[in-house]
Amino acid sequence: MNQPPRLLTLHPQDNVAIALGDIAPGETQGAPRLLQPVGQGHKVATAPIRAGENVLRYGQIIGQARADIAVGEHVHVHNLGMGEHSRDYAHASENAPLAPSSEDRSFMGYHRADGRVGTRNYIGILTSVNCSGSVARFIAEAAETSGLLDGHDNIDGIVPITHGTGCGMSGENEGYATLFRTLSGYAQHPNFGGILLIGLGCEVMQISDLVGGRPIRADGTLRYMTIQHEGGTRRTIEKGLDELRGIATLANKARRAPASVAHLTVGMQCGGSDGYSGITANPALGMASDLLVRHGGTTILSETSEIYGAEHLLTRRAASVEVGEKLIDRIRWWEDYTARNHGEMDNNPSPGNKRGGLTTILEKSLGAVAKSGSAPLTDVYLFGEKIDKRGFVFMDSPGFDPCSVTGQIASGANLIVFTTGRGSVSGYMPTPCIKIATNSDMYRRMSEDMDINCGDIVSDGVGLDDKGREIFEMLIRTASGERTRSETLGFGGVEFVPWQIGAVM
Amino acid sequence: MNQPPRLLTLHPQDNVAIALGDIAPGETQGAPRLLQPVGQGHKVATAPIRAGENVLRYGQIIGQARADIAVGEHVHVHNLGMGEHSRDYAHASENAPLAPSSEDRSFMGYHRADGRVGTRNYIGILTSVNCSGSVARFIAEAAETSGLLDGHDNIDGIVPITHGTGCGMSGENEGYATLFRTLSGYAQHPNFGGILLIGLGCEVMQISDLVGGRPIRADGTLRYMTIQHEGGTRRTIEKGLDELRGIATLANKARRAPASVAHLTVGMQCGGSDGYSGITANPALGMASDLLVRHGGTTILSETSEIYGAEHLLTRRAASVEVGEKLIDRIRWWEDYTARNHGEMDNNPSPGNKRGGLTTILEKSLGAVAKSGSAPLTDVYLFGEKIDKRGFVFMDSPGFDPCSVTGQIASGANLIVFTTGRGSVSGYMPTPCIKIATNSDMYRRMSEDMDINCGDIVSDGVGLDDKGREIFEMLIRTASGERTRSETLGFGGVEFVPWQIGAVM
Ligand SMILES: [Ca+2]
Ligand SMILES: [Ca+2]
Ligand SMILES: [Ca+2]
Ligand SMILES: [Ca+2]
Ligand SMILES: [Ca+2]
Repeated sequence: MNQPPRLLTLHPQDNVAIALGDIAPGETQGAPRLLQPVGQGHKVATAPIRAGENVLRYGQIIGQARADIAVGEHVHVHNLGMGEHSRDYAHASENAPLAPSSEDRSFMGYHRADGRVGTRNYIGILTSVNCSGSVARFIAEAAETSGLLDGHDNIDGIVPITHGTGCGMSGENEGYATLFRTLSGYAQHPNFGGILLIGLGCEVMQISDLVGGRPIRADGTLRYMTIQHEGGTRRTIEKGLDELRGIATLANKARRAPASVAHLTVGMQCGGSDGYSGITANPALGMASDLLVRHGGTTILSETSEIYGAEHLLTRRAASVEVGEKLIDRIRWWEDYTARNHGEMDNNPSPGNKRGGLTTILEKSLGAVAKSGSAPLTDVYLFGEKIDKRGFVFMDSPGFDPCSVTGQIASGANLIVFTTGRGSVSGYMPTPCIKIATNSDMYRRMSEDMDINCGDIVSDGVGLDDKGREIFEMLIRTASGERTRSETLGFGGVEFVPWQIGAVM
Repeated sequence: MNQPPRLLTLHPQDNVAIALGDIAPGETQGAPRLLQPVGQGHKVATAPIRAGENVLRYGQIIGQARADIAVGEHVHVHNLGMGEHSRDYAHASENAPLAPSSEDRSFMGYHRADGRVGTRNYIGILTSVNCSGSVARFIAEAAETSGLLDGHDNIDGIVPITHGTGCGMSGENEGYATLFRTLSGYAQHPNFGGILLIGLGCEVMQISDLVGGRPIRADGTLRYMTIQHEGGTRRTIEKGLDELRGIATLANKARRAPASVAHLTVGMQCGGSDGYSGITANPALGMASDLLVRHGGTTILSETSEIYGAEHLLTRRAASVEVGEKLIDRIRWWEDYTARNHGEMDNNPSPGNKRGGLTTILEKSLGAVAKSGSAPLTDVYLFGEKIDKRGFVFMDSPGFDPCSVTGQIASGANLIVFTTGRGSVSGYMPTPCIKIATNSDMYRRMSEDMDINCGDIVSDGVGLDDKGREIFEMLIRTASGERTRSETLGFGGVEFVPWQIGAVM
């Protein structure tokens, strides 16, 4: 950790590098020679930049030089600004597919009737409304106490999925539609080998609507009931245990079998970000995302409020004009959503961000977008909408971690990768969550909660591509059954957080 | 149950009675003689009503006769309408205090340092954010497993209080203020003998803000910590168990002692309402409310969206013009809240309501207001705002049960009374919840979940005043330690639902 302060170049096309510590002139070993002191996280020109020319970080434009900038010069608010570049969506103008990988990689997964592949084999007790949440937990506890899963060694456990909504809402608006997609997505999720769905009976989110008219789990592994129809708590628990026994018999027949990594759908998330997120863990995850996409798999970027300001870079990567326009539609929706709630979309660097070296909204937003690598954007999905295309996709969501991850899982994520600088501890059953530390200090303090340390990019000079490969390999091991830290610790009991949109009535 | 169909008069001043079954002319025993068949739940005139005269139910105006109405005539949309009465708030015009009771009733409660009295003695593990929820539960589980409360027989248990918000929100708007009040109210609640407050560290709802600058639990029974400061999950659990031991030593010193029932604060709630709610359980609860107010106690009406349309009757009961105006301010706020969320305040009788006999929005809303009896309205509070006056008060909230009850408890409710027609099962630790069935059919099916049956008002002709007394006596027994059905069944693990207002970011 006592290595000399260094400079990090995040992409070969960049004309700036990032100081990995406070650096004085002359202190850098190798080019460029600094012309003035530069603080940790700040930018230094690595090529001459003429006034008006683009400044590139992550291989992406973060603004234009306000004056000629010499090699070794500090690049910040005094000589870097933003022009009108962001007004031009240039839909689908930079969407060349990544070269397919020549490797043929697979994991050991659960092949489901609908063609999807699970990375876990849980039984879910899903609830339509808060009012059936306690009974769902009572059933799970009674199953545990009674040893209901004894001899069912292929089942990972029984997971009650409870939440704070499902009633006191309109049955017709986008809030209802969002919750409906979320619950439907969990009901069909490939990481569940079976589902027991429990309602109270009189709620807005009716069980009959959730299960009606569509084949969910044609293999008979979805059962449902309401507390009012069964006649109260005790009878519902008894009937629930009966149903669970039937579900468990079926779910226990599942066996892990080889599956192409093309069946992996990885929700990418950051929470508790810090100044390192955009230079270590996020770009490393971008490398892993590109690797998985080259293998035919799927990665999901979300957190619309945190990529705001960089949307025109994603539209350039859109597979088609229509896909680019879908993204912009969501951006416009968010501007309205925040305005009608007396707020605004504002992802501009805060004074603290600026002290840390972030100059423009583009640069800040790109720190979040960096998770997505360079693959074309295949499609854009609503929160919890079923993902039906492969490659790199976007799913609309807030940045709030449990809510965003809930949407990604509802959309079909069978793995989550979560970068964190401050140290988030959380898990999201039924989907395993790989935690990546952005810095070695936090990793040392919270190593029992972290699966990978990307702080060594700074502290030990490990390459982003090497970390990307390390993440990719952990994806495959985790998908095949290796437990993450948060799974071992038992997380996931409270982190199901549907996006509540609209008035609570 | 095979008694002849009867008519129920809900208040001595009423000029209509309610049919307790489908009744044919001549079938009623005693006056009035029906002039035409009247369906169950529908109204019959019990006095001659001239065109333009007020029609009274619950002793309150539900509209005006559109034509002369004879005794025994069916009263519904054909001859009953609404004039401009509801435009006149007549603040504080009908606010005569109820006569104080000559009885001197007390319960056995926990006297707290701040002068309030608890009805239970739990230890709460409170969380600032969803991201510390799992760890709160791990600590509670570890305390259970390790027998931490062994020998602490005066403590009712350890209650993790988890939720789905606390971050991904503005730190400045009314959504933040509402959550802040809610968490503060729980932290200070007299039903807790001690509080362990746990945050993640980087959330919007900072622990330092929650505990800073104000004396919370001056007796040392509030401790706090963040997961990031402690260095992860395992260390936080260990430290949390240490803190819990210290809290338990203090909390275990609490003893039940006599307290005037003036220290009872009862949150009144209805959920899963049916056609009987406004005839049986709600007016019976109104009787109990009046009894408690006459004894110096406090009752809380809430569910603003469900009393909408009857606000001018509450303003008449307001203790002062200012109190009446506070209520109307909340009504105006709700009109804006629903409008900006693309909805509207609409409590008008639905076609189904009308088939069931409800004619006007006044009549429907009065079915909810009936819970509040006839006492003057002492004050109006925001969601979760600390109640500092005695008597009958209003606390603003949605109708959604877990959310509304959460606000009432945060405001200081040490008892909840919950009327239900369809059969709600729920509990709200740390506050016991008394469930009242509106009808005997549901009571029979779900008697293991119900504490009191008000269906016998219809099925056995029991008087509303007798039921009010029965509820009042159960309040006292419950406050003194008798466990409700939902407590025995173990409810309360998921029903903490703060009112999430505003955009999730
Ligand atoms: Ca974030
Ligand atoms: Ca589609
Ligand atoms: Ca996030
Ligand atoms: Ca209701
Ligand atoms: Ca309610």
